[in-house]
Amino acid sequence: MTNDRFLRACRREPVDATPIWLMRQAGRYMAEYRAVRAQHTMLDVIRTPELACEITLQPVDAFELDAAIIFADILPILIGMGLDLDFVKGEGPAIGNPIASPADVDALRTPPAAENLPFTLDAIRLVRRELDGRIPLIGFSGAPFTLASYAIEGGGSKNHVKVKTFMHAEPDAWARLMDKLAQVVGDYLVAQAEAGAQALQVFDSWAGILSPRDYREKALPYAQRVVARAQSAGVPVIYFGTDLNGMLPDLVQTGADVIGVDWRIAIDDAWARLGPVVAVQGNLDPVTLFAPWERIAPAVDDILARTAGRAGHIFNLGHGILPGTPVDHVRRLAEYVHERSAALQRESER
Amino acid sequence: MTNDRFLRACRREPVDATPIWLMRQAGRYMAEYRAVRAQHTMLDVIRTPELACEITLQPVDAFELDAAIIFADILPILIGMGLDLDFVKGEGPAIGNPIASPADVDALRTPPAAENLPFTLDAIRLVRRELDGRIPLIGFSGAPFTLASYAIEGGGSKNHVKVKTFMHAEPDAWARLMDKLAQVVGDYLVAQAEAGAQALQVFDSWAGILSPRDYREKALPYAQRVVARAQSAGVPVIYFGTDLNGMLPDLVQTGADVIGVDWRIAIDDAWARLGPVVAVQGNLDPVTLFAPWERIAPAVDDILARTAGRAGHIFNLGHGILPGTPVDHVRRLAEYVHERSAALQRESER
Repeated sequence: MTNDRFLRACRREPVDATPIWLMRQAGRYMAEYRAVRAQHTMLDVIRTPELACEITLQPVDAFELDAAIIFADILPILIGMGLDLDFVKGEGPAIGNPIASPADVDALRTPPAAENLPFTLDAIRLVRRELDGRIPLIGFSGAPFTLASYAIEGGGSKNHVKVKTFMHAEPDAWARLMDKLAQVVGDYLVAQAEAGAQALQVFDSWAGILSPRDYREKALPYAQRVVARAQSAGVPVIYFGTDLNGMLPDLVQTGADVIGVDWRIAIDDAWARLGPVVAVQGNLDPVTLFAPWERIAPAVDDILARTAGRAGHIFNLGHGILPGTPVDHVRRLAEYVHERSAALQRESER
Repeated sequence: MTNDRFLRACRREPVDATPIWLMRQAGRYMAEYRAVRAQHTMLDVIRTPELACEITLQPVDAFELDAAIIFADILPILIGMGLDLDFVKGEGPAIGNPIASPADVDALRTPPAAENLPFTLDAIRLVRRELDGRIPLIGFSGAPFTLASYAIEGGGSKNHVKVKTFMHAEPDAWARLMDKLAQVVGDYLVAQAEAGAQALQVFDSWAGILSPRDYREKALPYAQRVVARAQSAGVPVIYFGTDLNGMLPDLVQTGADVIGVDWRIAIDDAWARLGPVVAVQGNLDPVTLFAPWERIAPAVDDILARTAGRAGHIFNLGHGILPGTPVDHVRRLAEYVHERSAALQRESER
């Protein structure tokens, strides 16, 4: 590996400069991405390994990033389970036959990843070949709770009334649903590692809609299972969700090697609550990148100052990069994180 | 005052049972409310003191609630400042001429509340007369940051790119905007207390989109100003926002007597971080009320157990009550909070 900063930081080993990658780094803010998407739907790109590979490489060729992340989405895993998923232009994902009853849960299939998502596994193999050891490749999946939320709500949701009501009113069917999701997700994560992913991120994007009490009982046990299965493949695991700052110690219970935190907390406060047993990823507000550069730099300085002298920080945004983000700011951000953190490193060694 | 539990809890004085009121308690989940709204628009109701009074009293007549809250909205204050506000059916608030430049900020007027919102002050006087000392009446306003967010975004927003970009790119105009909003909001809060409101809640609904660093610099100083002005009228002040669990100690800096917390944190954890100088309001997940009652009761028990033996807890939801909430569950919730907390109280005295 030419540049192994990211993997070293996942293991809380010292690095020469803080590694950086950005959630959704292959995305709509890049003209190269928009050019591909003008010709192909989201699902087409995900299902065509050559296109997924091309898009995966766009940001790592353009910017000083320390990891690639495979271009895919958390929801296609539901298709093979029996849900009719589509990405509706301008409205996001929509499921035509959302889960509404215990019988719907029992009808869900649990196909192995090699059958359900072979195109993403092929894309991982392709990207690894193209990267040729330059930087590591991250695979990912949605966590069981977040997938259950989409499967029951039928798409995004403001208040998540359906998923929470199902969870409370049908505890047995909920457990069976989460069991099935944990099985399929765990298998998918292991398959990604076997195909060449050198780290795995578990997105629990909706876990932050739960009270700590509900999280511990209804979501955490299944997150623990998928993290443990992923780690059995010998790669580090990152667990990420937003709006979870009221229950950070619970997130450590997932067993993940790295916890991703959103921008709503000072990163050293978050790390103090998480404790020394995990690495931390984050946490610049994605909207900060829309500001003039002279406002961005102090916000980056602040994060680096709060993590300086401590092994195990991976720089990232606190959530996915947004469409419309100025590309030049992304370029400068990656360079600046490396320069500033290396300088802080040298200062501390003097 | 026949029932002063709520005001005693605001001052962290002992009570016979935990007081309860619900954010948005006069709302669409009640048939009586929907009947009035079928005849009148949102702005009509707010601008007609008799209608606002009628709706304010609906939940306090129907349920065992320990406080009324005046029926109004945080946004009409912007109309007198020069913004064209409308409530678009099914889509929420929309501002026809959102703030887009420093010149727009300078064009904003700062009318006194008696001229800008006389109808709400009249409604407060009416409700006080009707309540006749039964329970206290709460007035409220949006906080400057949250109002600025609406004024710049022109309505609700997913990522708040416009307001944050304006805040970062135009720091001087931002300060002038927040000055104007703090002046108008402070005046409105004082006028509500003078009209008869016995407590005031400041809704900083959008503060949770900020990093702690931006909150401290760009929002907190103005929240402090309006809280101090409101307190100068001699009434307790509640400060509430969601997604703020990563910066609870900062919220204490607002100077508010009570901090409202959302359901994303255990209430005793929140109180420990806030410290002993404030009362705490919250924090049942509003969606829990859609569950079967046998799932609701243990969630209420959990909150009461975490606050038992400590003066200064006001029971509430962690956010506004949702349309579709079963009315019978609201009735049982209010009764159950009183019964259970009184029993815990007696046990602890034994």
